Amino acid sequence: MAIHSYFLTLFIILVSARLFTELAVRLKTPPVIGELLAGVILGPSLLDWVEPVEAVKLLAEIGIIMLLFEVGLETDIKRLVETGFKSIIVAFMGLNLPFVFAFSLAYWFFGLPLLPALFIGGTLTATSIGITLRVLADLKRQNSTEGQIVLGAAVLDDILGVVLLALLYEFSLDGGINLLNAGKVLFSLFTFFLLAPLAAKLISFIIHRLHSASEVPGLIPSMIVSLMLFFAWLAHEVGAPQLLGGFTAGLALSRRFYLPFGAFLATDSSFAHEVEAQMKPIIHLFTPIFFVTVGLSLNLREIDWSSPFVWVFSSSMFLVAVAGKILSPLFIKGEWLQRWAIGLAMVPRGEIGLVFAELGRQSQIFTNEIYAGMIIVIALTTLLPPFILKWFYGKFY
Amino acid sequence: MAIHSYFLTLFIILVSARLFTELAVRLKTPPVIGELLAGVILGPSLLDWVEPVEAVKLLAEIGIIMLLFEVGLETDIKRLVETGFKSIIVAFMGLNLPFVFAFSLAYWFFGLPLLPALFIGGTLTATSIGITLRVLADLKRQNSTEGQIVLGAAVLDDILGVVLLALLYEFSLDGGINLLNAGKVLFSLFTFFLLAPLAAKLISFIIHRLHSASEVPGLIPSMIVSLMLFFAWLAHEVGAPQLLGGFTAGLALSRRFYLPFGAFLATDSSFAHEVEAQMKPIIHLFTPIFFVTVGLSLNLREIDWSSPFVWVFSSSMFLVAVAGKILSPLFIKGEWLQRWAIGLAMVPRGEIGLVFAELGRQSQIFTNEIYAGMIIVIALTTLLPPFILKWFYGKFY
Repeated sequence: MAIHSYFLTLFIILVSARLFTELAVRLKTPPVIGELLAGVILGPSLLDWVEPVEAVKLLAEIGIIMLLFEVGLETDIKRLVETGFKSIIVAFMGLNLPFVFAFSLAYWFFGLPLLPALFIGGTLTATSIGITLRVLADLKRQNSTEGQIVLGAAVLDDILGVVLLALLYEFSLDGGINLLNAGKVLFSLFTFFLLAPLAAKLISFIIHRLHSASEVPGLIPSMIVSLMLFFAWLAHEVGAPQLLGGFTAGLALSRRFYLPFGAFLATDSSFAHEVEAQMKPIIHLFTPIFFVTVGLSLNLREIDWSSPFVWVFSSSMFLVAVAGKILSPLFIKGEWLQRWAIGLAMVPRGEIGLVFAELGRQSQIFTNEIYAGMIIVIALTTLLPPFILKWFYGKFY
Repeated sequence: MAIHSYFLTLFIILVSARLFTELAVRLKTPPVIGELLAGVILGPSLLDWVEPVEAVKLLAEIGIIMLLFEVGLETDIKRLVETGFKSIIVAFMGLNLPFVFAFSLAYWFFGLPLLPALFIGGTLTATSIGITLRVLADLKRQNSTEGQIVLGAAVLDDILGVVLLALLYEFSLDGGINLLNAGKVLFSLFTFFLLAPLAAKLISFIIHRLHSASEVPGLIPSMIVSLMLFFAWLAHEVGAPQLLGGFTAGLALSRRFYLPFGAFLATDSSFAHEVEAQMKPIIHLFTPIFFVTVGLSLNLREIDWSSPFVWVFSSSMFLVAVAGKILSPLFIKGEWLQRWAIGLAMVPRGEIGLVFAELGRQSQIFTNEIYAGMIIVIALTTLLPPFILKWFYGKFY
C-alpha cells in the first residue's frame, strides 16, 4: 500500500469517527457507540471501504494504550488498593461465572465437544477494558467508587483472560495443560505489576528533570509517548496485555502515586498539569482509531441470519454472558445500585473475546455457525451496555 | 512485523532523537543535526538497529506534513505574495544553476553518458524544504524577510523538482519528453495551489463551527489532522509533493489569510490559538520521526571510501551543488547579507534528491560509485548548512 493511500484511509477513519460521535451525542447515545458504528459501517459488514491493515492496527493499538495511559493518569493508587479486594472478587467471579455458564450451556445443552465448549467459555470471560472505561469516562463516573472497583476488576480480568487464552491454546494443541508454565506466567505478570510502576516512576523523574533543563521544545510528547511504548512492549514481553503498559506509564505520572510501604511520591503538580495538557490532544487523536478498528474487525456479513441455530445459540449465550458479569458483584458487600452498576459496566467483551473467536475459527475448533454466534454475542455485549449504563445512571443517580 | 515490535522501534527512534537533540544543543549544534545523526547511527550506516518499514515511513511522512502545516500556520500570505517575485527568481535560478553546473561537470568533465548526467543534475536541483525550514525555525528566523523568500522559493523548488523528476523518469523510459503532459501537470499543480487554500479555508470554517457546537472533547486534533491528511492525499493526486498538502492546511488556518482580490479572512484569534496549542504537541511528536528517517535512509556503509573517483566526484559535485544555490539569490535585489543567508538556506538537499538517486540506482542509470558520490553530496548538503547558517547568523545578525 502506497504511503499516500494511508492518508485517505486515516482521513476516512478520523472523519467518520467524529461524524458518528457527534450524531450519537445528538441522538442522546453514548459517543463511543458512534465510533464503533463508524467502524462497522466502513468495514466488511457494510461498505468495505477500509481494511484494518498493519499500519492502521498499529495506530489503533497505540490508541488503546493511550486511553489506558489516560486512565492511569487519573487513578489514585491508594483508592485502587483500598477497593482492591472487591475488585479481585468481581474479577474472579466475573471470569468464572461466564466461563462456567457458557461452557455448561455449550457442553450439556448444545451437546458440543469439550474443546469448542471450552473455547466458547474462554471467549466470554474477559471484559473489554477499553469499552468499559470509555463508557464510564463518557458518563464522568470513572472516579466514583464503582468506577475504581470496575477499573481494578477490568485490569485483573484482562490479565487473567490472557493467561486463560494461553492455557486453552496450549490445551488445544497438546490436549494437556502445563501448570508450571501457567504459574511462571502468573509470577512474571505479578512481578511486572509490582515493579513496572516503580520503574516508570523513576523514568518519569528523569523526564521531569530533562524537561526543566531542555531548551528544545517538544520533550514532553515524545518522551511520554516513548515511556508508554516501552512499557507496552515490556508488558507484551512478560506475557501481559500490552495496553496495560500504557496504564503503568499513566499510573507513574499520576498526581497521587503511593508506594506499597506508604510513602507518597506525587508528581510535581505543574509538571503533571503540563503533561496532561500536552498529552490530551495526542490521546484524542489516537483513541478514536482504536474504537473504529474494533468496529472494522466485526464482520456481520459472515453471519447466516437465516439459520435458527445461530439465533438460539447467540441469544442464549448472550444471556449467560450478561448474567455471568451481572451476578459477579453480588459476592461483594455494597449498595444494590452500586453493585448493579459494576455488573453492567463489566458486560462489554471486546479484544480478547475477538482473539479467542478468531483463534477458534482458524484452528477449526469453531464451526462457522458457532463463530458467527460468538461474534453476535461480542457485538451485543459491546453495543448494548453503553446504552443501558447511560439509562441506568440517568435514572438512579 | 508484529505490532509490539513496532513499539520498540518507535521507542528507540523517539528516545534517540531526543537524546541526540539535547546533546547537539549542549554542543552548540543545531537541534535538527541531532535527529539526523540519530537516524544515521540507528540505521544501516552504523548500528542497523532500525529499518524504515512501511509504518515508520508513514509516521515520518505525517511528520513532515505536520512540519509544513506548522510553517503554513505561521505564514502571512500577503507577505509571501509580496516577496513572491523574489522567491520565483531564487527558485528558478536555484533549480537551473545546480542542474546546469552538475550536468556539465558530469557530461563534459567526467565524460558520463547523457542519461546519468541528466539524473545527476536532477538529483541536485531541489532544496530540502523540511531541513531548510527546520533550520530557520531553530534559529528563529522563519519570519524574517529572507525566511519568507526562502519559504516561497523552497515550496516552488519542491514542486518544480517533482515535475523535473517526472520528466526525467519519462525520458529514461522512452528517450523522449511529452511536453503536453508536462504542461498538464503544471496546470493541475497551479490550479491546486490556487484553489486548495480556499477549499481548506472553507473546511476550516466548518471545523470551527463544529467545534463551537460539539460536546465531545477531541474535535480539534482529529479534524485538523484529517484536514492535513486530506490535502496531502489531494496534493499527491494532482502530482504535487504530498507535504505541500500540510502547508495548504496550515495556510488555511493561519491568522492572516488573504484572498487574491484583497479580502481578509482571518481565523478567529481564540480558535487559532486553541488550534495551535492543541496541535503543537502532536507536531512535536511526529516531526522527529521524519528527520530520524532521513538519517535512516542514508546508507554510508555502501560507499567505497577507498575509491579515488568517489572522492573527486563527490567533492566537485558538492562544490557545484553549493555554488548553484549560493549564486541564485544574486539575481534578486537586496542586501548582501540577506542574499547570502538565502543562498545558504537553500543548500540542503533531501527527500527529492534521495528519490532521484534511488531511482537512478534501481534503473541502473547510476553505477554504484556515482550513487555513492550522490549520497555523499546529499549528506553533506544536509548536514553542513545548519552549522554554517548558525555561525552566519551568530556572526552577522
